[in-house]
Amino acid sequence: MNWELNSRAVQLAETLLPSAETLRITVHEVPGGGRVLDCGVSAEGGLGAGLAVAQVCTAGLAEISLTGGEIAGRGWPHVLVASDHAVPACLFSQYAGWQIGVEKFFAMGSGPMRAAAAREEVFKRLDYREAASATVGVLEGRKLPTPAVFQFIAEKTGVSPKDTTLLIAPTASAAGNFQVVARVIETALHKLFEVGFDVTRIRSAVGTAPLAPVARDDLTGIGRTNDAILYGGRVTLWVRGDDESIAEIGPKVPSISAACYGEPFLKIFEKAGHDFYKIDPHLFSPAEIVFQNLDTGTVQAFGKTAPHLLQVSFGI
Amino acid sequence: MNWELNSRAVQLAETLLPSAETLRITVHEVPGGGRVLDCGVSAEGGLGAGLAVAQVCTAGLAEISLTGGEIAGRGWPHVLVASDHAVPACLFSQYAGWQIGVEKFFAMGSGPMRAAAAREEVFKRLDYREAASATVGVLEGRKLPTPAVFQFIAEKTGVSPKDTTLLIAPTASAAGNFQVVARVIETALHKLFEVGFDVTRIRSAVGTAPLAPVARDDLTGIGRTNDAILYGGRVTLWVRGDDESIAEIGPKVPSISAACYGEPFLKIFEKAGHDFYKIDPHLFSPAEIVFQNLDTGTVQAFGKTAPHLLQVSFGI
Amino acid sequence: MNWELNSRAVQLAETLLPSAETLRITVHEVPGGGRVLDCGVSAEGGLGAGLAVAQVCTAGLAEISLTGGEIAGRGWPHVLVASDHAVPACLFSQYAGWQIGVEKFFAMGSGPMRAAAAREEVFKRLDYREAASATVGVLEGRKLPTPAVFQFIAEKTGVSPKDTTLLIAPTASAAGNFQVVARVIETALHKLFEVGFDVTRIRSAVGTAPLAPVARDDLTGIGRTNDAILYGGRVTLWVRGDDESIAEIGPKVPSISAACYGEPFLKIFEKAGHDFYKIDPHLFSPAEIVFQNLDTGTVQAFGKTAPHLLQVSFGI
Repeated sequence: MNWELNSRAVQLAETLLPSAETLRITVHEVPGGGRVLDCGVSAEGGLGAGLAVAQVCTAGLAEISLTGGEIAGRGWPHVLVASDHAVPACLFSQYAGWQIGVEKFFAMGSGPMRAAAAREEVFKRLDYREAASATVGVLEGRKLPTPAVFQFIAEKTGVSPKDTTLLIAPTASAAGNFQVVARVIETALHKLFEVGFDVTRIRSAVGTAPLAPVARDDLTGIGRTNDAILYGGRVTLWVRGDDESIAEIGPKVPSISAACYGEPFLKIFEKAGHDFYKIDPHLFSPAEIVFQNLDTGTVQAFGKTAPHLLQVSFGI
Repeated sequence: MNWELNSRAVQLAETLLPSAETLRITVHEVPGGGRVLDCGVSAEGGLGAGLAVAQVCTAGLAEISLTGGEIAGRGWPHVLVASDHAVPACLFSQYAGWQIGVEKFFAMGSGPMRAAAAREEVFKRLDYREAASATVGVLEGRKLPTPAVFQFIAEKTGVSPKDTTLLIAPTASAAGNFQVVARVIETALHKLFEVGFDVTRIRSAVGTAPLAPVARDDLTGIGRTNDAILYGGRVTLWVRGDDESIAEIGPKVPSISAACYGEPFLKIFEKAGHDFYKIDPHLFSPAEIVFQNLDTGTVQAFGKTAPHLLQVSFGI
Repeated sequence: MNWELNSRAVQLAETLLPSAETLRITVHEVPGGGRVLDCGVSAEGGLGAGLAVAQVCTAGLAEISLTGGEIAGRGWPHVLVASDHAVPACLFSQYAGWQIGVEKFFAMGSGPMRAAAAREEVFKRLDYREAASATVGVLEGRKLPTPAVFQFIAEKTGVSPKDTTLLIAPTASAAGNFQVVARVIETALHKLFEVGFDVTRIRSAVGTAPLAPVARDDLTGIGRTNDAILYGGRVTLWVRGDDESIAEIGPKVPSISAACYGEPFLKIFEKAGHDFYKIDPHLFSPAEIVFQNLDTGTVQAFGKTAPHLLQVSFGI
């Protein structure tokens, strides 16, 4: 199936332009072609910009909203995500699987442009690739993309820079922070993908996570947004197939399955010598996961939230 | 007042057609006239399809959404319903009061077509009937409606099969399950109607219920969706009139007022020899009901949720 | 910056007209010019009308919705408000800072017309004023505004009566009650403004409050809606600047900082001899307030909700 992720996201990005000022985002036309929607570098962004980036990043195939909730008895805004198309929305689009380094520029790349490039393992294993006439990407980074960055992306996607739109916000910005927390379902799917679960069995998904407080710097931001999901994220998946495979794989899915579980992410990162690759990859998962089997009616629930760790991480 | 339930629902149903693929519903033109929107028989449906069916079934006169929530401390998606027109939306349209049996076909019928047929007691007692040029019905069933079903319905509604649209999903499907749980306010209103409360006193309503896990078969699905409301449903009604009648009738409203309260619905059904009519009709009601009197300012609350029974019913 | 509050609200008010019947609001053209949208005087209003009034009153610069929630373990509808533009939405528009007394007519005035008049202290200190070609106001009152009221407002706003739209609902009506509870963020901002905090530091805000039960009379309604915020309101503010000023001012912000905190508002009002000006002005604030500093990443939380006082006030 052609999900038309790029086409959907291009349309969504267009709808943001008339509201740019209210969303506190600025639009730049790049010399040599290409458009940047600055959602948090020089522009300030906000809750609305964060929601917009999250929607574009899932190509409009997820319903995303801000909702209420609590952490340890105190009112705290949460992000709610729901999708009947979690694999294309989250794995083919939202997952930040494309590290974009061009000269001195570096950012984590996500959004539908990944499906146009289709260089990552996930596209090979799930056999997905999109021919796009225009493309949209989301960058988690602190510098506006240069013409060279557009050129680099264009070479991989086959879409010319002038038909490429890049949204950008640093982790430690209102919009960047929001869009990362909105990856709560994506984190579950990516973990399942990594532990060998056939993710095409997933037919619908709902997730919530507390909106992390925007951090003073990106490293702390990475810590807090990870903690929001690891210790506060809750995901329900509606799946097909047998129950046994879920019973077997389920305990390995929530973050509690990792040996290093139980400390704020930044502490774990420190202990790993600031090397992501030394962290137990099992950690990157929501706190709670519930599988509802559409074929058997069986419900299997794993993990639980850790509000006290959110309090430590968020400083409340 | 003419609520134009059919006209509203026809318009809503039209808006689903361009999104059919994304909603995982399929559209069939029936030989001899009539249109079927398959939301869960051969089509897969999902959360979006369930929401769509629920909205059509209330003729667009209720706001329905998926929201967060908890069951016994675990994150669990809930359905939220709000309406300023609960009587037409729920009693004249959403209530599954029309048993449609034609040859080997059987389904529970709901939606605005009921108001066009207006054969049920509720339409006589509340004096409502709609002349419609086109009609929409919702079927809870497992087989696609045949031309004979359309013919049967057309005879009762006075609307020709070619102007009749039927949405269908079995109880044990994603969309069917969702739309039944979305009847949380309707269940309260129907119960009130049955115990003799003047439902026109109800001016606004808000209800929530946990989204039951989709069951493996329809009987289990009936059990779980009933339990979602009986043990997890919460309804607030804004009413007019005196407080005394509410004080008197209130204790009879929540599900706890029934002698058989306290076990999963399927167990109760078994004990009644699988005969619905032997079950205490007082059971069919939300767990909690709050009356807010708009005339006197008095609040009266009855019943309470039973999360442990939801855990048993849902298998969590 | 010109927020075009009046222009935004005029457009919003226009969108209500085709839905007036469904919203249970009535529209009157006033002799001599001017339009009244009766949302609760003779018209009945409801949840939808309340939401509409709240949206117009914030000039469409806040997202407002009805959501679930609990009071002391019982399901209870809440109002959720979010804005990236809380100062213009709440202080320049939503705050009921304009007492309108003309002959025997009296109402509390809010909405964008305040920014066109710009007579209040808040407009001087925050240097805001709008030149408007059409204006919209919201009245909390029990009598429909007369031509003299329109004339009085026109003189202050500089907009002719024929280009003036007034929405009206008494406190003790479904819509009036809703729109007052929707002031949960506004109450926090006004309190901060009064204690000398530079409110332009506030960049985004989210708030929730339980929807008070509609009271039998306006005085009781004022009590309940105040209690909804004082004892049930929760506000998160994303701010810029230093942490020290927040640490200093923070404890003075939530309602618990007032000496008279701890009783239903009506009781406090009675003890003050029914004189608003004798009530500790520190009382008028949400129960909980969380400051998230966008510049330093520091989170500071103050106050807490008092569900038992809501139970007393709401009579549950």
